[in-house]
Amino acid sequence: MITLTTDFGLEDPYVAQMKGVILSINADSNLIDISHSVKKFDVRMGAFTLASAAPYFPKGTVHLAVVDPGVGTKRRSVMVQTKQAFFVGPDNGILMLAAKSQGIEHVYDLSNSPYRLPKISSTFHGRDIFAPAAAYLDQGVKPFEFGPEIIDPLTPKFAETTRKNTSLYGEVLHIDSFGNIVTNIAEKDISNVKTVKVKLAECSLEATFAKTYGEVNLKDPIALVGSHGFLEFALNQGNAAEKYNVHSGDLVTITLS
Amino acid sequence: MITLTTDFGLEDPYVAQMKGVILSINADSNLIDISHSVKKFDVRMGAFTLASAAPYFPKGTVHLAVVDPGVGTKRRSVMVQTKQAFFVGPDNGILMLAAKSQGIEHVYDLSNSPYRLPKISSTFHGRDIFAPAAAYLDQGVKPFEFGPEIIDPLTPKFAETTRKNTSLYGEVLHIDSFGNIVTNIAEKDISNVKTVKVKLAECSLEATFAKTYGEVNLKDPIALVGSHGFLEFALNQGNAAEKYNVHSGDLVTITLS
Amino acid sequence: MITLTTDFGLEDPYVAQMKGVILSINADSNLIDISHSVKKFDVRMGAFTLASAAPYFPKGTVHLAVVDPGVGTKRRSVMVQTKQAFFVGPDNGILMLAAKSQGIEHVYDLSNSPYRLPKISSTFHGRDIFAPAAAYLDQGVKPFEFGPEIIDPLTPKFAETTRKNTSLYGEVLHIDSFGNIVTNIAEKDISNVKTVKVKLAECSLEATFAKTYGEVNLKDPIALVGSHGFLEFALNQGNAAEKYNVHSGDLVTITLS
Repeated sequence: MITLTTDFGLEDPYVAQMKGVILSINADSNLIDISHSVKKFDVRMGAFTLASAAPYFPKGTVHLAVVDPGVGTKRRSVMVQTKQAFFVGPDNGILMLAAKSQGIEHVYDLSNSPYRLPKISSTFHGRDIFAPAAAYLDQGVKPFEFGPEIIDPLTPKFAETTRKNTSLYGEVLHIDSFGNIVTNIAEKDISNVKTVKVKLAECSLEATFAKTYGEVNLKDPIALVGSHGFLEFALNQGNAAEKYNVHSGDLVTITLS
Repeated sequence: MITLTTDFGLEDPYVAQMKGVILSINADSNLIDISHSVKKFDVRMGAFTLASAAPYFPKGTVHLAVVDPGVGTKRRSVMVQTKQAFFVGPDNGILMLAAKSQGIEHVYDLSNSPYRLPKISSTFHGRDIFAPAAAYLDQGVKPFEFGPEIIDPLTPKFAETTRKNTSLYGEVLHIDSFGNIVTNIAEKDISNVKTVKVKLAECSLEATFAKTYGEVNLKDPIALVGSHGFLEFALNQGNAAEKYNVHSGDLVTITLS
Repeated sequence: MITLTTDFGLEDPYVAQMKGVILSINADSNLIDISHSVKKFDVRMGAFTLASAAPYFPKGTVHLAVVDPGVGTKRRSVMVQTKQAFFVGPDNGILMLAAKSQGIEHVYDLSNSPYRLPKISSTFHGRDIFAPAAAYLDQGVKPFEFGPEIIDPLTPKFAETTRKNTSLYGEVLHIDSFGNIVTNIAEKDISNVKTVKVKLAECSLEATFAKTYGEVNLKDPIALVGSHGFLEFALNQGNAAEKYNVHSGDLVTITLS
């Protein structure tokens, strides 16, 4: 089983080219799209998307992820083996949020992989290097056969949360398509909290903690731990990010009470 | 075979999480997307989409549909068994348009289903309850093993059409992505009609009945029975809903001649 | 294996209806989406999309493509057999760019195919004629069993490039979702070129030839042979089509140096 996460969109033939390459190597591959609507060049959104979905897939799944603004430059290509799965993509951090949470065992440099298309374009390693690597890995080729082991894969600097008395400082990790504001503050940091005062980019608000959107009035703000396991701000049937003009990467300060 | 219909979009990892859950239970599941672009919280559009596609799938297909504004509240979860297929989703009407047209045999309350993820979030029953139910059902678990039979599933009040002399009163069921205006007036109500006078939300127009778009001039209005089996208004290679400023739910009055 | 290319979008149930029809004929079909986001009625974009993806698929693949503004008129339906694959769709040119590059062996007229749904709508041959044809073909029915051979399939008039001294005249074949401007000028026409002067629709510019986007400064213009094998103009991490106000079909003149 191979999953695909890219910023290619579904309008262009790029995703289909990758799938064609994989299916030409192994016609029985089971291909599952995670998302092809990652914002162009947004490695963090790609990493978040992959990290949100990967835990739900079976042991041994090959996760192929390509958000690759540095394609054709000297950035490396990598394959990461974890206790649970395999990850294939550029060495720009896109794989590491998902891979670290599963426990990384080995990282290999794919840059000179023997399992690649005969002709390598300088603009589309997703098709020419990563797709064949994922296909052969899924077929049983061993990870170390793709290239030398490395110990310094690039790890993204997703801001860590810090605590000072009753305040927690973090950032917005993601705005989902419902306009829900997902922060990088984890469930364990906010146990037993009833309401939170929040400072987001441009505004302050007080949000009630609840288990679900329906517990507050229509369009009222709510704080909850979302299905990702992170603190999230939302409006009941409304778009919180639009209302509060919040974007991915914005700082978040919350005061617990 | 399991189909999926949601309002989650393809940008977020939610659809992939559901697929991961299903494939972790049964790696051989055949997953077919009906649509993930149902308008957020629009149960009627979800019901229409599912009802349009379900008749074309093989006997025994499991249809999983999640447009679920009431998730986490007291609304029930249901599994519907028809003469043709199975339907799994929230008890808010999304399943019933498709299910009723196939002949409902049994409805079961899934709310306390033993076939669920160990930890149930209050915001994402699609992943935690419905996806595992669909996967186990597809694997052969019997419908009655998921919960008690019920006789009062919520059925949506899609407006019925009424007739008064030569006038028919109905409503707009759906605007498709071509801008075609699909009404809830069925083929049988308009047999042998040549032209119709139409009152739509804000305007009156006269449309020629035709078998296909190409029979009228470019951008001219046309009335036809669409591939759904319902009366539809369209422009030849144009966007009728935009031109006439018509929306889903608008009233439609037609006078037959 | 059956691929699908349409302009139906993913919001409506039309793609799912086609898949349901195919899976009802053969539940084991392996269905791969190339794209359903071809611009409505844009046969050229459909032809380009299919031609870009088809070469990567295994021998014997059935490519189903439906961009069909003339549905229900007298236009024919065709099945094309090449040295590599099969193509099924309307006889409006959508199949021919991909098919010609593989070497066409036979073309059959599907219009009266015996392998169709019992009831043919006049608006959706994709579901009623093309999908069943693709499914039965994939199952082993021979091409000539679908209808008589023909020798005059409609071939699209994609502009040919012309050369006059050091100038090349062509046109914009496609704008991809990154805003890259793909022309119909092929790699062989521009070998050993360092910089090009370009006249696009409304402006003139000088672009450096490079192997990859990252070789020029952020937002600077670049000329390169894209992953399609065609001359392409792009901005490093920017949207070239927007900046230069260029659209599909615009004329392109380049002066080599």
